[in-house]
Parts: sequence; structure tokens; C-alpha cells
Amino acid sequence: MAAGETPTIGVAMLGYSFMGKAHSRAFRALRELDPPLLPELVSLSGRNRDAAAVVARRYGWGDVVTDWHEQVADKRVQLFDNGGPNAVHAEPTIGAARAGKHVFCEKPLGMDAEESHTMWKAAEEAGVVHQCGFNYRFVPAVRLARQMVESGAIGKVVHFRARYLQSWGWDAPVDDWHFTKARAGSGALGDLGAHIIDLSRYLVGELATVSAEVKTYVDGHEVDDAFVAAAEWEDGTIGTLEASRLARGRVNSNTFEINGSEGSIAFDVERLNELQVSDGPGFRRVMVTEPEHPFMQYWWPPGHIIGWGDTFIHEFHHLLTAIAGGGTVAPHAATFEDGYRVAEVCDAILRSAASGKREPVTYR
Amino acid sequence: MAAGETPTIGVAMLGYSFMGKAHSRAFRALRELDPPLLPELVSLSGRNRDAAAVVARRYGWGDVVTDWHEQVADKRVQLFDNGGPNAVHAEPTIGAARAGKHVFCEKPLGMDAEESHTMWKAAEEAGVVHQCGFNYRFVPAVRLARQMVESGAIGKVVHFRARYLQSWGWDAPVDDWHFTKARAGSGALGDLGAHIIDLSRYLVGELATVSAEVKTYVDGHEVDDAFVAAAEWEDGTIGTLEASRLARGRVNSNTFEINGSEGSIAFDVERLNELQVSDGPGFRRVMVTEPEHPFMQYWWPPGHIIGWGDTFIHEFHHLLTAIAGGGTVAPHAATFEDGYRVAEVCDAILRSAASGKREPVTYR
Amino acid sequence: MAAGETPTIGVAMLGYSFMGKAHSRAFRALRELDPPLLPELVSLSGRNRDAAAVVARRYGWGDVVTDWHEQVADKRVQLFDNGGPNAVHAEPTIGAARAGKHVFCEKPLGMDAEESHTMWKAAEEAGVVHQCGFNYRFVPAVRLARQMVESGAIGKVVHFRARYLQSWGWDAPVDDWHFTKARAGSGALGDLGAHIIDLSRYLVGELATVSAEVKTYVDGHEVDDAFVAAAEWEDGTIGTLEASRLARGRVNSNTFEINGSEGSIAFDVERLNELQVSDGPGFRRVMVTEPEHPFMQYWWPPGHIIGWGDTFIHEFHHLLTAIAGGGTVAPHAATFEDGYRVAEVCDAILRSAASGKREPVTYR
Amino acid sequence: MAAGETPTIGVAMLGYSFMGKAHSRAFRALRELDPPLLPELVSLSGRNRDAAAVVARRYGWGDVVTDWHEQVADKRVQLFDNGGPNAVHAEPTIGAARAGKHVFCEKPLGMDAEESHTMWKAAEEAGVVHQCGFNYRFVPAVRLARQMVESGAIGKVVHFRARYLQSWGWDAPVDDWHFTKARAGSGALGDLGAHIIDLSRYLVGELATVSAEVKTYVDGHEVDDAFVAAAEWEDGTIGTLEASRLARGRVNSNTFEINGSEGSIAFDVERLNELQVSDGPGFRRVMVTEPEHPFMQYWWPPGHIIGWGDTFIHEFHHLLTAIAGGGTVAPHAATFEDGYRVAEVCDAILRSAASGKREPVTYR
Repeated sequence: MAAGETPTIGVAMLGYSFMGKAHSRAFRALRELDPPLLPELVSLSGRNRDAAAVVARRYGWGDVVTDWHEQVADKRVQLFDNGGPNAVHAEPTIGAARAGKHVFCEKPLGMDAEESHTMWKAAEEAGVVHQCGFNYRFVPAVRLARQMVESGAIGKVVHFRARYLQSWGWDAPVDDWHFTKARAGSGALGDLGAHIIDLSRYLVGELATVSAEVKTYVDGHEVDDAFVAAAEWEDGTIGTLEASRLARGRVNSNTFEINGSEGSIAFDVERLNELQVSDGPGFRRVMVTEPEHPFMQYWWPPGHIIGWGDTFIHEFHHLLTAIAGGGTVAPHAATFEDGYRVAEVCDAILRSAASGKREPVTYR
Repeated sequence: MAAGETPTIGVAMLGYSFMGKAHSRAFRALRELDPPLLPELVSLSGRNRDAAAVVARRYGWGDVVTDWHEQVADKRVQLFDNGGPNAVHAEPTIGAARAGKHVFCEKPLGMDAEESHTMWKAAEEAGVVHQCGFNYRFVPAVRLARQMVESGAIGKVVHFRARYLQSWGWDAPVDDWHFTKARAGSGALGDLGAHIIDLSRYLVGELATVSAEVKTYVDGHEVDDAFVAAAEWEDGTIGTLEASRLARGRVNSNTFEINGSEGSIAFDVERLNELQVSDGPGFRRVMVTEPEHPFMQYWWPPGHIIGWGDTFIHEFHHLLTAIAGGGTVAPHAATFEDGYRVAEVCDAILRSAASGKREPVTYR
Repeated sequence: MAAGETPTIGVAMLGYSFMGKAHSRAFRALRELDPPLLPELVSLSGRNRDAAAVVARRYGWGDVVTDWHEQVADKRVQLFDNGGPNAVHAEPTIGAARAGKHVFCEKPLGMDAEESHTMWKAAEEAGVVHQCGFNYRFVPAVRLARQMVESGAIGKVVHFRARYLQSWGWDAPVDDWHFTKARAGSGALGDLGAHIIDLSRYLVGELATVSAEVKTYVDGHEVDDAFVAAAEWEDGTIGTLEASRLARGRVNSNTFEINGSEGSIAFDVERLNELQVSDGPGFRRVMVTEPEHPFMQYWWPPGHIIGWGDTFIHEFHHLLTAIAGGGTVAPHAATFEDGYRVAEVCDAILRSAASGKREPVTYR
Repeated sequence: MAAGETPTIGVAMLGYSFMGKAHSRAFRALRELDPPLLPELVSLSGRNRDAAAVVARRYGWGDVVTDWHEQVADKRVQLFDNGGPNAVHAEPTIGAARAGKHVFCEKPLGMDAEESHTMWKAAEEAGVVHQCGFNYRFVPAVRLARQMVESGAIGKVVHFRARYLQSWGWDAPVDDWHFTKARAGSGALGDLGAHIIDLSRYLVGELATVSAEVKTYVDGHEVDDAFVAAAEWEDGTIGTLEASRLARGRVNSNTFEINGSEGSIAFDVERLNELQVSDGPGFRRVMVTEPEHPFMQYWWPPGHIIGWGDTFIHEFHHLLTAIAGGGTVAPHAATFEDGYRVAEVCDAILRSAASGKREPVTYR
């Protein structure tokens, strides 16, 4: 590193599919946002070398390997990014942390609360920076919502309702891996529900109890197609949480609404650049694209929207800033502790569906 | 009655406030829809004679009385309409039924499931026509939704979610009667929740179980400000039900969405003349104002909307048609049995909130 | 009239079709709004006695006549309401005015500017109260918009854009009378355009110039299917005006937007009870259903919408108030002068389409 | 270039501000979309070397120069991209073309129709590939709209209406260069109007005539703040075109609607990933994010939106494909001829505003 230049950080990534692509693109674009560390794309690992090689070439990864152990052992690597399938989140991530690499892992963190807990503890013990990939926290409108709640702009929160609705579950082949127990672990709950649970924790606080129904409707599906829950947060807020892959007409409708004593906020991920704000009669549609809005100083003039993939750039910018500063990614990014806590809520939802009781969210 | 003319039916009404006004207006307007019986507005009863007299003059009620017993004893009366406060639903309505009058009673039917059951049984034993005032069934868009579900247009239903959100609870005086136990009996649950429970029964079918939270947030309120519930219907549909008087920015937002295997439907009572229909990618906004849409043959050219108050005209037209035909108002209007069944769901929600368990909806 | 009672006013109406129905309903409902004069429905005239008789019976008109001269000569009549086809607006209305009756006439006032001018002058000379049926001025949201503009809430107006789009022109029989020159006189311009021109005059002020295109697309149509215009108002506001019967997907989409130096307002008649208001970032959806909103003290609790037909009740309430007070219906209702001035704008649009020039709006 | 690898193309860019940033980002990202040529970012030119150097470092441009002549003379450069201010579009672009470079130039092409014509002719004579930066053609929803129109899905087009509304003109300093004649040349017309004129040509066809008003409202502004036009296209379509920088509440509201004999389409650039489609009652909101939608095979699963900046990636992908194939960018990208033709429409609008006449759009 020459004097005056941005220092670099070596990155190794596991995975080359949906998340592999989103992460690669974000790492490449990061330099455009003046990060405190410039990522060097050292290596990409995947079981299918040819498929991984295509992604590596497209995005500029240096090496392609089929065994993540090589990455963990690689001295050039300071950050290990796990964008692989849920079933291979724990072992490589723990291995990397123990080798002293900072770690980023996609959500859901582990296959269940127990595994997530192990991952969190391992990263903590290793003393590395750890972040879990709840990227919706890095939507400017979501960050603005958090600012508004924190500042008291909507007063005391009383209700939170979120629903994450998709419809592709009706039409996908029933043997798609998303519907298998072994590879996916969970269905709508872990895939979609985890996102809204994390958002509720980020925006309102810890969940106290849940009462839930979890359902598999389609013959051949081994995991849940949908869940619904009535919930209470520790501060007395009540609300509903829902996710489904069977909501015809809904493509990727991830929405929440927060009602407080002084105002309300509503959001829909399909309209990523908008926040509905009630600070008087009705809701106003605020385009969250002004230069003073979170992250928007890096982007375009007002009204020129950013995309879903761009949230990953913010997410990694945040991570590298924490690494450069020697700190934690909390509170704005999800740590592994957050990833674990979301998993406990998911487990409580499953317990409630089985027991028919209101289940407290507990932590080990 | 001269040959060829429409026969008349004598009507007596209890109540002169919000519902008294809505009912009076509807009875007056009814002749414009060629009903099989023409209502004669025989008498209006209310404890405050002067206030009642103002309403009577405005809408053309013949007599004003302060004791509903007079109406029950009045030979000119064939239909008794109870639009009074919840606490005076049961006794006058039962009295009228036993006197052989057909009966209409506003929702919620009784103060609880037990009282509602007594009212239903009394009306049945008396052999009179009975209808409970769930007027949202008489919104053309809601009736169209029912037609679509029944015809199989959206396939097998898997989800139902409804929320009835208002915000006036923050600003109204805490000693307003709506917040008192004695006069209101229930809060958001009985006032708003009853409507969406009835709609779910009309559109999907009987509820099997509920898991709920019920909350009073505002100091001085004796009844619930809000509730949330995760529910399952007998056919395996799962969904959420919510109501609140504390949702800032929401005036009278009574919305539902139904997801089926072949399509979806969504509705908002603030946009009473619209139905959102998904029968392909996305939802289309259907103006339910075409001549072939339910009830619209009585109204205006397409796109010229009707109002909330007009649903009562449809409701009474339906009632008088049943009376004239000697039949029941089922299935399109709520009978007293429906009113009772809704009350059982409300009671199950309260039980669940207290017990912390998924409570089955049971009937005595 | 007994002491303390509301005095009455005898009304005769011409027409029994769409407007005949809307007017009849409004006159019947008027007593519910405590008007200063109670309408007595003396007689209804129409060329088809049987069809007129059906309407008369439904709404309670006393006599049915086939010759409007009888109404003009009737001593019981103090108000003559012309809700008939455009071709019979002028003669009966002028006759009634000369006989000393107050006159209400549907829009467009005359078949063209000249005829409209004659009607206005005749009513003025007769010294009667005269009102032209631009009912959209009586939508609470529109009246609120006017209040906001007048109060300076949106600052100096710079733009006005309005479009009134329907689609039935594609599917209706080509020999429908609306498409004939003799009976309709004008097409989208006179039928739909007149409404938005009147609204622009009510909300912004007088039009100075128009540059327009007027088109007939469908074979067999004798009148215009659509027009577009670029316009300037006397205060320097510029904007666009459009109407079409050929806009697929649009049922009755009558929308306007006003942009001022301090804020903006937008409205859509299909969402009659809503006003979109920008008084900061974005637009907020204001439900114009609060008791302090124009006319809403007569109606329901917030969020319970009124219908299109109810605007006529407001319109006649306003008229009877002016008659009782001995004044004019200006500025909130359209006088015959307003009806005439709208006709001059329509004529200027036709002139511009023919001349290919920006045409000033001139008055005789 | 090694065997089997993607050949490269040397790119030089002029400009480092808004467009400089958008273009740089797109060139960098291009390799992720498997383009037929890989851009090598040879040099960036700008009058302010330090400012240019910041952008160059961020996006990876090789050299920084202050004189574009160096770029024109540079043998390593095969493509010259002009993203500078309007006043420096012509000379460098013509110079580059004459030097045999392929040329891309931002919109508006020249300062007026004459200059645009010269640029077009120069590029044609040089035999290079030329493209003008109307990036909205590369919004997937816009391309889908074009496909629908071409395929006859909405039948014969009868109306086109577009408005491009912003509001920053009220609050920006009056001496901002956008409001100066010398540097900006045009105001809302050239900046915003050019976009919607181009879209109308892309979606409907050539404009035949325009009748317009052009206004400057704010003291100190030298260019137009707003324009309105009534227009007719060569195929008989009529419609309106408007743009304003003074529309309070509108941030970057670039919307159009096309009505045809069989259906309609509507679009808003603030909701870039949505197309409103009417192919039956009402409009359906189609998320244009399915893999089969234009360009979306390069992006994310359905419902995960792309951003405004991503349209430039599509735009350059298209350009490089044309260069690699030895063809033209027509019809899907705008050529310099298209840039010129848009300028003629702008000039006709100015002529009409001055003459008060319907002006034909003519070409030299």
C-alpha cells in the first residue's frame, strides 16, 4: 500500500449462486463508495468448479477452489464471506473465525437456534468481527425508519405488523431443494420470516412471546409453506408476523407497518425507495432519495432510485468500516448474536405451532 | 293497499344516534330500489325524547316514544329494528320477536356469546325473520368477492388476513362511553373485530382456533384498545386478524386479503367501490360499479361510486325480500345465528389472551 | 306551514333518466340535511309517460306530465329543474325563468356558447336564482381544495392539469345517441371536458387561451371521441386539459392536479373522498371525511365514505339556501354565467382545433 | 487477448459529474453481464483535474486528462463517451467520430436541432456507431411496453400522455447553472421534455404537430421552468406532453400512459420496476422482474428491484453489442438521428410557444 492510498483487505467467499452473485457484485462496486478498506477478491469456493469459475471470471475473483479449507488456511484472506446454502453455514464460518478471519454469514445464520448459538460463541471467542446478512437493514428507507423510531418521531410504539408474501411456491417443482428438509431446513419461516423478525428487532426491540400456526399445503413439500403469528414485544407492543410462498399476486411483498402514539411508518420492499410516513392526516409517500437520507450521499439526485442489490454494497461498506475501526457492526448491522436471536424466535414459533401455546422467546 | 301497488310493512326503530341515522336514511331511500315491501316508519324510540324527535322529523318517523315496550305492543309494527347501544340490544329485540315482529339488530348482537345465543334462540322460537347488522356484506365489492370465492375463481383458499385500523382512540376523551366497560362491553374487538370476523366467516368459512393478544394501552380506558390473533379456519386456511383504535394515520382502514391456489382478492373499506383482484401477474383494481356487479343495477353508470351509508339500503332491501318471501336472510345476510357465532369467536379471542393458549371456537 | 316548521318550495323537474334519477334522489334526501326550504315534488315531465311514471312513483313526484309547459304554468311550482337531454335545456328553462321560477339546469348549459348566453341573460332578466349542474364542485374534497387554494395554502398556482378518461366509447353501439350530432351536440368535450373546465375555473380562475386537438376515431361517431389542449389561465398558470371516451382501463377517471409555489393538490373522482395533499415531501392521502370538512357534518364518522350521488344533495342544499336567502349561488355553485363561460371555453377549443392556432377565450 | 477470452474495447470519457459517475459505474459493472466486448477504462477528461482524478480513482479510469483532444488522438481508444455538459457535446463528439472512434453522447444531443443535425451527419459520414443517451429506453418496464405496443397487445394507439415533473426549481439558487442560457441552453424542455419526447417516439412513432406554452416563472431564471403541449403523432394519436421543475410534491415523476383500442399501459420512473397494464377491467401492477422480462435474466429473482443507475449498464451493453456486431444501435437505442429528431420536436415546441400556432415537426 502506497502512502495516501486506501489499504486493502483480502476476501474469500463461499458460494456462487444467488447470494454469491449479490455479494460479488457488491464487493466489486464497493470502491465507488470510498470504503476505508478496499476488498481484494482473493478466492471463490464452490463444489462445482466450472460454475464457480464462471462467476469468478465475471466478477474478478482471483482463485477458484472447491474446498473452503483452503480459504480458511489462506494467509492472504482477512475476511471470510459465507454466501453458501444454509447447510454449510456453520462449519466453514466457525473454521474461518478460529483461523482469525473476520466473518460474514448469510441469513439464516445456522440451521436452528442451537447451531446459530455455536457460531456466535465461536466468533466471539475468536475475537473477530462478525456480521449476519440481514440486508434489509441497509435499505435507506429502513434505516430512515429506524432513525424516526429512535428519535421519538412516532412516539411510543404500540403495533408492528409485517408480512413477507411470495407466490412462487405454487408453480415451482415440488422437488426443488427449497422444499426439502435436508437442504433448506426451513421454508417460509426461515427464508422469509427471518427477515421480518430481524426487522422487528431492529425497529421495535426484542420479542417476548409468539403464538403461531405453521402450515405445509402443497403435497411433496417437506418444509413449511406459510406461517402466521400473533406476537408481543418486550415493551408491550403487539402485532402480527406472517410469511408465505403461496400468496398469489404477491411477488416479493415484504411489508411492515409501525404504529406509534405520535405517528406511523409503512414500508414495502417492492417499493424499496419509498417510506410511507404518517405525521398528520394520512400517510405521505416519501422518496428516500434525498442526499441527507441514509446512504444516499453515494448515489443519484432525488427521485432516481437504487436497486435491491445495492443494499449489499451498504452492508459491506458498514462491515469494512467496523473492521477498519476495530469495533463491532452493532447496532446497525446484525451481528451473529442477532442472527442467533432471530433463530430463537423462529424456534419459538415452531414450538408454539406444535404446543398450541403462547411461547416465550428464550435464550440459552 | 290498492291493487298493483307495493304492500307496506310497519317499522319501529330503537336508537337515534349513528346507527339510528344510518338506518333511518336507508329505510327512507328504500323505495327507490323497488323493494317488495314499502317500509312505513311507524315510530322511533329513544330515552331522550327531544333528540329522538329531531331525528324523527328529519327522516319522517311517525311517532316518537321513550319506551320501546310501546313499539313491541304496537299492532302497526311488523318489523322491529334495534339500532341502539349494545347494552339494550337483547331485551327489546327478544321482546319484539316474542310479540311476533320480525327483528333486525345491529352488531355486535349481544354483550357476549351467551346473550347473543339467547337472542338467537328467542328469535328462532318465535319463528320470525332475524338479521344482524353486518352491513359490510352488502358492499358490492364484498359480495363480488364472495361470488368469486364460491365460484372457485381463486381456487382453494389458504390465507385470510384482515385488519380494521382506526386512530381516534388517541385523541378522544378517556371518559368517552366507548371506553367504558358498562356501556360498551368491548373495545376494538367487539366494535371493529366483530366486522372482520363476520367477513371471514362469510368469505372463507368457520374459524376453528384462535391465538390472541388483547391490550389496553391508554390510561383510563376500561376496554381493549387493540387485539391481534393468529387463526385457523376449519378448512385449513391460516391467517391473521387485528383491530386497533390506536393506529395513527389510519382513519377507518378495514381491509382484508384472501389468497387462494388460483388467485387473490384484496379490499379496503375506505375504497369501498374497488376490489383488487389477482388473476394473473399483480393485482388489478376493479371498479365494482358495472351494472352486472352486485346491487349496482340500482345505481349509477360505471365509475360513479356509492357511499358507505348505501350499504344499509341493500341490507334492508335484502331483509324485506326475505320477509316478503317467507324465508331466511341466510346466507348473504347475517342471521342472529351468525351474530351469535361471531360472539363466540370474540369470546375465544378473549379466552386465548387470558389463557395463553390456542383456543378452539366452540358453540353451545 | 305551521309555526316553527320549515317552509316548503314546489319543484318541477324535466327528465327521468340518469340525471332525473340523481336529482330525484337528492331532492328526496334533502330533508335529512335540515335545508332552509323543504322541496315538494310537484311534477315530473317526460315525453314517455310510462317511463316517467315509474320514476315518479319510485321517488314520490306528485304529477306526471308530458309537456313541460304545464310545469311552467303551474302556480305550485317555484323551482324548475331541467335534468333533460342537452337539446331541451334552453327552451323550457328560459320559459320557466320568464314565468318567475327559479331555475336549475344540468350541464352543459346550452348546445353551444350562444345558446348558453341566451339562457343566462334570460334568467338574469327574470331576476330568478339560477344554477348550472356542475356537481363536482360539491364533492367535499373539491371544496376543500378550493379552500386551500383561496387560503394561500399552496401559494401561487403555476400548473393545473386535468383529464377525464372513460373507455365505454369502444364498446357502445355506434348509433348510441351520445355519438350523434343532433342529440348530443358534443362528445367527450361537452360531456366530460365541460366538467374539468368548470373545475379549473372554480379552482384556478379564468382561462385565457387554449391550443387544442379534437378527434373522432370510431367510424360512425358524429361527435368528438377525445380532445387534448394546452392552456393558459389569466394569472399565468399553464396546464393541460384532456378528455376521452377511448381510454381503455379508465372507467370514470376524472382527475386534476394543482401545483403551487408552496404545495400541491391532486384529486380523482373515482376516489371521491380522498384529497392528495403535498405540504412537504410527497403527497399525503387525506380522507375528506372529518366533521370539519366541507359538508361532512351531515354525514358519518371519519373514514365512512359518501357516494357520487350525494354530491347532488349538497348541490340542491346550496341552491335552496340561496333561494331562501334571496341571493346568488355564486361563488361556490356555478351560475348560468358560469355555464355560459364554460361553453365559451369549449367553443375556443373547437376553434383552435380547426384553426391550428392558440385561441383566446372570449366572451360576448 | 487470449483465445476464448472476451475482446476488449478502449473507452475514453468526457465528464465526471452526475453522468460521469453514472457512466463510470456502468462501464465497471458491464463485465458482470457477459458483454461481447470488455471495456477498458483508458482515460477520463475534465477541466478540473483534481475533481476528475477523484472520480477516476473511484471507478478505475487509467489516465486523467484536461483536454479531450488527447483522448481523440489516443490510439488505445475505440469508443468516446461524452457525458459532459450540453455546451461541450458537439465539438469533442464530432472530433472523436472523425478520428474513427465510436461515439456515445448524453442527451440532449446538441444545443439545438441544428447542432444536433451536424453531430448526426458527422457521425454518419465517419461511419462509426453512434448512440444518444436516452437511458429510459433501457428500463425493463419501458422495453416491455415497447414489446406490447409492437405486438399489437394494446391494439391501435390513440392517446399518449407524458409528464416529467420535478420540484427542485423552487428551492435551488437562482444562479445555479441549470437556469442559465449559456450553459444549460434549455430548461425543463431540454432536460426533462427531451426524455418524454424520445419515449413517445420510441413507443408511438413520429410526432406530426405540437401546440405549446413555455414559461419561466422564477425571477432570475434564464431558461424555461415548464412547458405544456398538445400534440398529434403521424398515426393520428393525440396527447399531451408536459415538464416542470416547479411541481411541488413531485421529486422525479416521469410518467406516461398509452391508450390503445385493446388496452393501456402506464409507467412511472419513480416505480421503475413496475408496469401498469390494462388488459381487462382496471390496471394490474406488473413487477417487471421476471427472468423473461427484458434484461432481467442478468439480475435477481422476481420482485427484487433494480435501480435507475442500472439502466446505463443495459445501455452500454447494447452499444457494445452493436459495435461488436458491426451494426447500428437502432431501433432499441437512440441513434444520433434520434437525438436530432428529438431536438427538432423541442424546437417546434419553442416555435409554437412563440408563434401561437400549431407547428409541424419538420426535419432538415
